[in-house]
Amino acid sequence: MTSHITLSGERFSVVYHLTGTEAEARAKAADICLEQTVELPDDLLTGDIRGQIVGRVAWLRQIESGVFEAAISFARETVGGELTQLLNVIFGNISLKPGIRVERLELPESLLRSFRGPRFGRDGLRARLGVPHRPLLCTALKPMGMTAAEMAELAYKFALGGIDIIKDDHGLADQPFCPFEERVKLCADAVARANEQTGRRCVYMPNVAAPADRVLDRALFAKQTGAGGLLIAPGLTGLDTMRQIADDDRIGLPIMSHPAMQGSFVAVAQSGLSHFALFGQIARLAGADASIFPNYGGRFFFSLDECRRLADGAAVEMGHIKPIFPTPAGGMSLDRVPEMRHVYGRDVIFLIGGGLRRHGPDLTENCRYFKRLVEENW
Amino acid sequence: MTSHITLSGERFSVVYHLTGTEAEARAKAADICLEQTVELPDDLLTGDIRGQIVGRVAWLRQIESGVFEAAISFARETVGGELTQLLNVIFGNISLKPGIRVERLELPESLLRSFRGPRFGRDGLRARLGVPHRPLLCTALKPMGMTAAEMAELAYKFALGGIDIIKDDHGLADQPFCPFEERVKLCADAVARANEQTGRRCVYMPNVAAPADRVLDRALFAKQTGAGGLLIAPGLTGLDTMRQIADDDRIGLPIMSHPAMQGSFVAVAQSGLSHFALFGQIARLAGADASIFPNYGGRFFFSLDECRRLADGAAVEMGHIKPIFPTPAGGMSLDRVPEMRHVYGRDVIFLIGGGLRRHGPDLTENCRYFKRLVEENW
Repeated sequence: MTSHITLSGERFSVVYHLTGTEAEARAKAADICLEQTVELPDDLLTGDIRGQIVGRVAWLRQIESGVFEAAISFARETVGGELTQLLNVIFGNISLKPGIRVERLELPESLLRSFRGPRFGRDGLRARLGVPHRPLLCTALKPMGMTAAEMAELAYKFALGGIDIIKDDHGLADQPFCPFEERVKLCADAVARANEQTGRRCVYMPNVAAPADRVLDRALFAKQTGAGGLLIAPGLTGLDTMRQIADDDRIGLPIMSHPAMQGSFVAVAQSGLSHFALFGQIARLAGADASIFPNYGGRFFFSLDECRRLADGAAVEMGHIKPIFPTPAGGMSLDRVPEMRHVYGRDVIFLIGGGLRRHGPDLTENCRYFKRLVEENW
Repeated sequence: MTSHITLSGERFSVVYHLTGTEAEARAKAADICLEQTVELPDDLLTGDIRGQIVGRVAWLRQIESGVFEAAISFARETVGGELTQLLNVIFGNISLKPGIRVERLELPESLLRSFRGPRFGRDGLRARLGVPHRPLLCTALKPMGMTAAEMAELAYKFALGGIDIIKDDHGLADQPFCPFEERVKLCADAVARANEQTGRRCVYMPNVAAPADRVLDRALFAKQTGAGGLLIAPGLTGLDTMRQIADDDRIGLPIMSHPAMQGSFVAVAQSGLSHFALFGQIARLAGADASIFPNYGGRFFFSLDECRRLADGAAVEMGHIKPIFPTPAGGMSLDRVPEMRHVYGRDVIFLIGGGLRRHGPDLTENCRYFKRLVEENW
């Protein structure tokens, strides 16, 4: 093997948290450099590959007892501009090794250039909805089992009450009791009808998570039928499928990312991906305009600190890649709005589902109350 | 909400492991029934939805101190025949809750009918390779950084030495130093040339993990260029993308599934998915003919017992869904072949990468030695 490799010299870095003693952490860092690139032991490599393809440990420091932080840089060319291969270099094989967590990505503009990122981002979505300042209000169509006509009736009531974004529950797919096309048509019409009455610009975002050969058709159908955005769970479809629909100029709709099936990446503190990286930075690279996650203190396992860090990742500087909306959800009640407003600031989408049903018998009134609560508390 | 729902009555089950006291496990099971379907508390539901859409706990029993096993059944219609939505019902939202692990799936033929599964399976792949009985021999083209011509030279040597399957390292994508199309053409030609000399039917399996809008093109190009199979990492592309290329009659090639990025699902025993379910049952539903995983005692974290269970999942009865090859890999050396043969039986693919380079200076001789070892030990 006598390869002579000529690369640009441009590199990107991944900051990992490594569990163990300093010696163990150093060994892990050295191993990541090989595992994520050449997948061969060092002694089987020749000079150019060792020097240019293998990752490099930029620095390593202790951050707490038994945990070290290390930045490892990789040649931009190992990724070649593809999100799938970027994910692979960041965490592919080492997802199968213990005590390694991706904390954050440090990507130079030369690599970011390969990605469009969110088409709308915070400013774009605010402009589209006509809500320049306050937090955005979101709720979900549910429960599974209702007909498309019943979903549309719900959507109408929500839109009339002042909700900004009405999304499908992510479990609504193309079930026989509520077929996708019928649902999208009826719900988009219902929201348009309410908008005529209110003069507002509420959008309906149907769920387009679907088999690989149908996602694009569903997204195009939704666009043509008047949906104002799309919901997708990249843990079900693959992150790059979300990127594909975000990039498609025929679609051109805002996208909410749902965390279904992604929980295992953040389930333990010592491995996987950080909330900052997965639901912030990576969601943005993959084109989401809003990143849904289970709020602290709800029925899921995220802590307040993890939620704060997630929101940081949704806005951290990433060249031309726009900041997006953190979207806390998951068993939130209306009485938590003031506190959530305090934690997340104004650039947030409050997604309240069941809690909005529970407040009183008149759903439209409940939405008005939700809106007043948010308007009073920013 | 006055839905009257008429369903088939056909149900499928998921067996979960739930951590906690019996009361906690029962509460978790009841919560899964709601969380994976309606996403509303029980008191907000009407009769038909509660009775037909919400999951049902079939049974719950203690299996060890602090761990309970529960079977929960769901109406087939909640899934509607889509792999993405099946994954969602099995583990979507509850991936975000602690102490819940998917142990195994129990799917009736009425649901399995929606999936073709592996096109070849064990018998089909053996027939294609002309290897009716013994374990199959596999190695990988690496390291990243070599040119396509150098990769082809390696492939030729491996094929000449008697390897059955030569796959790309999963980190080979479409990098500038080794473009996809050039690599596939040169490597497929090199393997064909070797096959003419040996009279054998070695296949080259290029990696087609790629952005969502390019996977199918890469798979079609590979097919047209003479590749004998495909490698894909569904953790990077989405599981249903693998299903899509497995189902496409224009492609019709055997598929090896690579576990990159899937490690977090199996990283801890109390949550995620079992090895049996993810690398066995789910890989089969998604069309893999072989499921690569890190062998116990290598450079990854799988235990002997987990590997055995994984191999069980690759063969467990699933109606018309064919059994597939467990493919242990990850830092294996040739001297472990007899022991691996003992653990996995004859229906296994041994994937040895670096270990094959290390045995001696002549790679073709090393392959012959590998083949003799396997032939002597079955």
